[in-house]
Amino acid sequence: MKKFPLKKAFTFIEPGPVTMITTFDGKKNNIMTISWNMVMDFTPQFAILTGPWNHSYKALVKTKECVISIPSVAISQKVIKIGACSGKDTDKFKKFNLTPLKAKYVKASLIKESLANIECRVADHIKKHNIFVLDGIAAWFNDKIKEKRMFHAAGDGTFTVDGRRINHKKLMINKLPDGV
Amino acid sequence: MKKFPLKKAFTFIEPGPVTMITTFDGKKNNIMTISWNMVMDFTPQFAILTGPWNHSYKALVKTKECVISIPSVAISQKVIKIGACSGKDTDKFKKFNLTPLKAKYVKASLIKESLANIECRVADHIKKHNIFVLDGIAAWFNDKIKEKRMFHAAGDGTFTVDGRRINHKKLMINKLPDGV
Repeated sequence: MKKFPLKKAFTFIEPGPVTMITTFDGKKNNIMTISWNMVMDFTPQFAILTGPWNHSYKALVKTKECVISIPSVAISQKVIKIGACSGKDTDKFKKFNLTPLKAKYVKASLIKESLANIECRVADHIKKHNIFVLDGIAAWFNDKIKEKRMFHAAGDGTFTVDGRRINHKKLMINKLPDGV
Repeated sequence: MKKFPLKKAFTFIEPGPVTMITTFDGKKNNIMTISWNMVMDFTPQFAILTGPWNHSYKALVKTKECVISIPSVAISQKVIKIGACSGKDTDKFKKFNLTPLKAKYVKASLIKESLANIECRVADHIKKHNIFVLDGIAAWFNDKIKEKRMFHAAGDGTFTVDGRRINHKKLMINKLPDGV
């Protein structure tokens, strides 16, 4: 994984793709699939929604750390299957043949087969709404993955793959932060 | 606009498209462009991030009402231009030749040229994080718009258009709520 500028990490989340969140509870790595996510301004801060119904919840609350891992459509089937089983009785890295890589700042693992990984610390837990606010602290990019299209959940079991890219930078020139 | 099942309204937001938010401050309609949005579980509840830097913020705080309007890529240029100017000095419906339609429950307008519109009431305002939690109360669908592909902001001035749709319902059968 190559280092990716943290200030641009939000460009992986703002499009609203399906993501995976990895945690480490002190004994076991786990992965959950999450498309309930949102960027928070032009910052490396992100909101995700999860609660006690996810096995990863306990580890997230306890360790206050995780990795947001952004897969390409090349592994969409694995990502969806990961969301359909539980870390309670499944070693998801093993079952889905994914490679955990050591992160730099957190104990949760990066996923080698993902396009990008963002190491995060929990900045706030809004219990009333099951929202976690995450501070991105480092971002990594796998430049060896040729399939770079992300994919998006409709929430009904169908997904759309990234299609054509359009450039409207000129229309937004006054709205974009420096260096993005 | 045809009525759209409220329980399925989240399927327009979960993919993470660029949306518009309309408000009515008692005198004027306004529109802002927002891609900082998130569904909250399989419910008609949504989170958006906005703050005092947007002219619409005041109306949203005051009226506790808005409409989330979901455009297709057919009007992407308008949507982005709407995000690049302010309701402070611009009548955006007029300037961008969009048609406000009367909503059923809120005073903010539906946008006729959008794929779908969701009438919302503010359920909570988490000031610390500039997050508004919105309860969807009615949803509408424009079945006359042929271009149904939504589009997603990367946050750097580029956008991706919905591409191929893939169906993974079988993989998720146990995770989907009834009737979705």
